Amino acid sequence: MTPYPIEILYEGVLSCNHRLLAKAISLIESTRPQDRSKAHKLLSMLLPHTGKSWRIGITGAPGVGKSTMIETLGLKIISEGHRIAVITIDPSSQLSGGSILGDKTRMSKLSNHNDVFIRPAPSGGALGGVNSTTREVMLICEAAGFDVVIVETVGVGQSETEVESMVDMFMALMMPNAGDELQGIKRGIMEITDLFVITKADGATLQLANLAKAQIQASAKLLRHKYAHWSPKILTSSALENIGIDEVWQCCKQYFAESTDANVLSLHRAKQNQHWLHQLLEQGFREIFYQFPPIKEQLPAFEQQILDGRILPTYAAEKLLGMLTVV
Amino acid sequence: MTPYPIEILYEGVLSCNHRLLAKAISLIESTRPQDRSKAHKLLSMLLPHTGKSWRIGITGAPGVGKSTMIETLGLKIISEGHRIAVITIDPSSQLSGGSILGDKTRMSKLSNHNDVFIRPAPSGGALGGVNSTTREVMLICEAAGFDVVIVETVGVGQSETEVESMVDMFMALMMPNAGDELQGIKRGIMEITDLFVITKADGATLQLANLAKAQIQASAKLLRHKYAHWSPKILTSSALENIGIDEVWQCCKQYFAESTDANVLSLHRAKQNQHWLHQLLEQGFREIFYQFPPIKEQLPAFEQQILDGRILPTYAAEKLLGMLTVV
Repeated sequence: MTPYPIEILYEGVLSCNHRLLAKAISLIESTRPQDRSKAHKLLSMLLPHTGKSWRIGITGAPGVGKSTMIETLGLKIISEGHRIAVITIDPSSQLSGGSILGDKTRMSKLSNHNDVFIRPAPSGGALGGVNSTTREVMLICEAAGFDVVIVETVGVGQSETEVESMVDMFMALMMPNAGDELQGIKRGIMEITDLFVITKADGATLQLANLAKAQIQASAKLLRHKYAHWSPKILTSSALENIGIDEVWQCCKQYFAESTDANVLSLHRAKQNQHWLHQLLEQGFREIFYQFPPIKEQLPAFEQQILDGRILPTYAAEKLLGMLTVV
Repeated sequence: MTPYPIEILYEGVLSCNHRLLAKAISLIESTRPQDRSKAHKLLSMLLPHTGKSWRIGITGAPGVGKSTMIETLGLKIISEGHRIAVITIDPSSQLSGGSILGDKTRMSKLSNHNDVFIRPAPSGGALGGVNSTTREVMLICEAAGFDVVIVETVGVGQSETEVESMVDMFMALMMPNAGDELQGIKRGIMEITDLFVITKADGATLQLANLAKAQIQASAKLLRHKYAHWSPKILTSSALENIGIDEVWQCCKQYFAESTDANVLSLHRAKQNQHWLHQLLEQGFREIFYQFPPIKEQLPAFEQQILDGRILPTYAAEKLLGMLTVV
């Protein structure tokens, strides 16, 4: 796949050469076994250079103004002298086959900037989840010296939870809807979000945005949050009137300052890595298990008997597990 | 463990002989391999007689008035000519070693009744989860002809989700707390509950109970619920003034009527059984995996290297999974 020796890619990533960075990421994303072992080697070499970025996840339904937010926030961040990488997970752009162009068009001001690297990530699996290599791509971007890495997801399937499990801070953009319309909030999103931003707080939707803010505030109080040191913040913004972006960035800074002070950041990351390992292991052995021929052949018949009420799951499980010997 | 032949237990369960029913449940709960195979046989024989009960899960923090609710609700149910079984999962009573006596004392009016069977279930695992045999105990009670089976949990660890995955309807009893105090609601509980009952809606706490009701109502609207045909109901009750129990029972009836009409009940149960099978399979395989000597020996070192930031989880997972051959 790549004609580049690992050493060239290694130097290219460390010097933040955008072309070589893209090549390195392509290597990471390749599923060919020989590429995987090269990728492992490259990642091992880069590992000591990772861990210095702020990792921010951003989610929001289509039309909420994610691109505008990332573009405006990104310009604000680089105006303070930082460099920023944006990894976008968008299953729909995968379908069109041209997501790079799509992302560059929708964030045109940001993508032309030298301190910015935008990279679409392939979505993993049929359900639009996060590809297992996205965490690795994030690490490559860190090694390349980006101060902020944003992982953006449109929120299909489990992607929010998956993104949340790889970033330091999770931001959800919300429509200026209130009351019953807010029902569109996905399960669990309330509990994993560190910062809500209600967009389009201007003109005809200003009142709605404020109402939504109050409702999310009341609702957030009802749920236990993930950290002791941070309760989720709720802000409003308007891209039209250029309002609220400074507050969002200030809130991010406050979050990272307080998390560092509370010594939570590194602990959180260590836990994420441990969780990542066990997730990979369980996913791996689940695959091994369900692909094992006797299981593969006999599982459907057992399932049918369970659905027909003829046998119990406990009985089926005992029989199926009894077919295994691990050596 | 049991000197009783399976045939005697079978007849005993079907004729709802409380003493033999208790013996049958003890056999089901035994972990001795020879008892397990007997238990499987007994369950297979009883399976055609199961599936006719209403399965209701009830959760609530200690002190919320669970025993009072179950007792009053239970007396109401038997007053209409039904028979009722109560399976209580309470890890704290396990510790005292005398949970049967405990449960009989705390529901004294109910436990003396002939149409009522109360059985404490051992909690599973160190975290106070639900034992894997609790579902089987529920089926035994169904075969014994109880019209309503209540599974009660105090809500330690994942027990609510586990109980919800084995019942038709899930009820959560809530303290008459509002505002910040409501933060005590556990993650996810909002999304799995079909009926909230706020207790102690009397005297000094009446206003608080009503406020809590309004807040849960607002909050429930923000979350997608598990069924299309049923949105969670929120009721208040007072054991002191004997108010609200009729409404709770009416609500249960309405739930089962609408679920049956919508053809949801049997589909839901089939899905629960399928989920149960895969849970058992994955749990079984996980145990095999983590007990496999090379994994057991080398996992801690790999984990430590990950925590130290020296290797990536992807690398560790590949190495560990590579140690496995299934035959």
